[in-house]
Amino acid sequence: MTEWYLQPAKEPDEDIRAQALERQDNLTKPKGSLGKLESVAVQLSAAQGTLTPSVEKPLIVVFAGDHGVTVEGVSAYPQTVTAEMVRNFAEGGAAISVLAKSMGVDFKVVNVGTVYAIEDLPNVIDMRVAAGTQNMCVTEAMTLEQCEEAFVVGRDVIDQAGDVDIFIGGEMGIGNSTAAAALAVAHTRLSATAMVGRGTGISDQVLSKKAAVVTRAMSKHLPHMKNGVETLRRIGGFEISALVGAYIRCAQKGIAVLVDGYICTAAAMSAIKVNPSIRPWLIFSHCSAEPGHSRLLSKMDAEALLQLDMRLGEGSGAALALPIVQAACRLQNQMASFEQAGVSRGDD
Amino acid sequence: MTEWYLQPAKEPDEDIRAQALERQDNLTKPKGSLGKLESVAVQLSAAQGTLTPSVEKPLIVVFAGDHGVTVEGVSAYPQTVTAEMVRNFAEGGAAISVLAKSMGVDFKVVNVGTVYAIEDLPNVIDMRVAAGTQNMCVTEAMTLEQCEEAFVVGRDVIDQAGDVDIFIGGEMGIGNSTAAAALAVAHTRLSATAMVGRGTGISDQVLSKKAAVVTRAMSKHLPHMKNGVETLRRIGGFEISALVGAYIRCAQKGIAVLVDGYICTAAAMSAIKVNPSIRPWLIFSHCSAEPGHSRLLSKMDAEALLQLDMRLGEGSGAALALPIVQAACRLQNQMASFEQAGVSRGDD
Repeated sequence: MTEWYLQPAKEPDEDIRAQALERQDNLTKPKGSLGKLESVAVQLSAAQGTLTPSVEKPLIVVFAGDHGVTVEGVSAYPQTVTAEMVRNFAEGGAAISVLAKSMGVDFKVVNVGTVYAIEDLPNVIDMRVAAGTQNMCVTEAMTLEQCEEAFVVGRDVIDQAGDVDIFIGGEMGIGNSTAAAALAVAHTRLSATAMVGRGTGISDQVLSKKAAVVTRAMSKHLPHMKNGVETLRRIGGFEISALVGAYIRCAQKGIAVLVDGYICTAAAMSAIKVNPSIRPWLIFSHCSAEPGHSRLLSKMDAEALLQLDMRLGEGSGAALALPIVQAACRLQNQMASFEQAGVSRGDD
Repeated sequence: MTEWYLQPAKEPDEDIRAQALERQDNLTKPKGSLGKLESVAVQLSAAQGTLTPSVEKPLIVVFAGDHGVTVEGVSAYPQTVTAEMVRNFAEGGAAISVLAKSMGVDFKVVNVGTVYAIEDLPNVIDMRVAAGTQNMCVTEAMTLEQCEEAFVVGRDVIDQAGDVDIFIGGEMGIGNSTAAAALAVAHTRLSATAMVGRGTGISDQVLSKKAAVVTRAMSKHLPHMKNGVETLRRIGGFEISALVGAYIRCAQKGIAVLVDGYICTAAAMSAIKVNPSIRPWLIFSHCSAEPGHSRLLSKMDAEALLQLDMRLGEGSGAALALPIVQAACRLQNQMASFEQAGVSRGDD
């Protein structure tokens, strides 16, 4: 039996794509003058199979998990912060909480594997797979079963979400920019130095250590990375795997995905390696200040909508891109054509 | 008597700026991790003189005017399009109309000088100074009186706007990217070739012609550009001058300005040359696909929030940046501090 996560995504409609491109050229604006908004609207038209694409029912879910690799001293923050930030999400004090609330978007947090247990909190769902991953420098971060269990966490969040047409996944996990960098190295074969960044704000010294940690993990696991799932479970994390499961499920159900920063982009690339059919459903929201992020986007021929020098995670960059994606759809759906408006055409 | 447009802008509060920077560093996020959003929130804090800046009462006004220089054949669209697009704005079919409506923002159009008279239309205010400017290759685009009259049009729009805390100016005028390029050359002393772009989508041949037109205009007027107003009235336009008047009035009244694309940025630079005290009130929303735009922004040490490969004008890029500026303020105002949330600090 084929695993659920290998089942194909809903396929884009190429006829609709061609019609959407034509519609864009007939709207009362110089051809191409809406830039990336035109590309996004056309992508969503093809994906959703309609000339009037819509992303008006968003959902934001932050997945939290801890990382065994933090014992190597790769982060500026102590591991306690993962659980502390989960409480901050629930209480409305975190960036993504403020953004979700001010935009009126449904927002929940899923604990996929913090080291410390967290008391019951509003809008925080406890689906812990384990108390953090193992240290990838020493052993596999997750067993295959744990990784697949985290996929299911992501899948179930989407299945239980009700009526959603665009999904924003966020992540919280001290140490997860190291896991993301390792995944980025595994999937691009660029150097660890090219793929590590300052994450929450580490010093030059810790940055060198972080690169060395990724290099050690790679030399240990590279010979065994025979497929996307195996790669992910060796060097990824619970929250990253939950994102992979959620992204794949979205694409299977026809829900657009707005991918957040470096860690989410590493999850998106991992998801594509697991199931390449999902690519048309992914929109890359922003390119963060992490130097590996733009390299990872290039590798996927992806262009991000925003570049705001952010490096926060939590889904914050994707939340900021949401109004732009919504505007892209509304412009395609509601602008007048030259004929409708009686506007003369140019010779462009 | 000093002209109204030379009166100083409301001064930023440097104490509040320092406090806002400190507040940003105490919010539950790694220092600096909100990137450009932090800079914008701090800028607005200082400008508005409060630690809780607010841009929740926006106004969008598109100024329309025609350009004598179009007889030189510098645009891909006929001059009739300026008035046709004014109708399209009023009827809701233009990009900025769709954006304003979907964001629930007040939107009006002010006719500062179309060649063709326009019938009464809802939300279109007729304040025509003249039936288009003169051809800058032959003579001054405007008399001093006309230029000052257009300033007053912009000023009065702001004075009559009621309770507004952020202003988005847009522009419509076939030929106005040529005027903007001429202003950009005048204020940067870079070459016409560096400052002209494809505007609405002209061919290579027309692009060369456009550069030659700007060069001709510059050699005619440069010796007489003794101050900002003189420069503007020789090579600018009615809608650009109205934007200058509106920008200056906003800064005098303490209203933040979200500057749109290349033409609005040329207006913003012109406004700074007329009255340098307004600079702290300007936020640059996006960098367009016009190659001169990024050069003009550099000259002002300005960084735009968005780069979406847009080149439409109308205020569309600024409208798209509005939710981001609003989010920047809400994040500063509503996020918890480390102390409030009980989150451990890092060593960043």
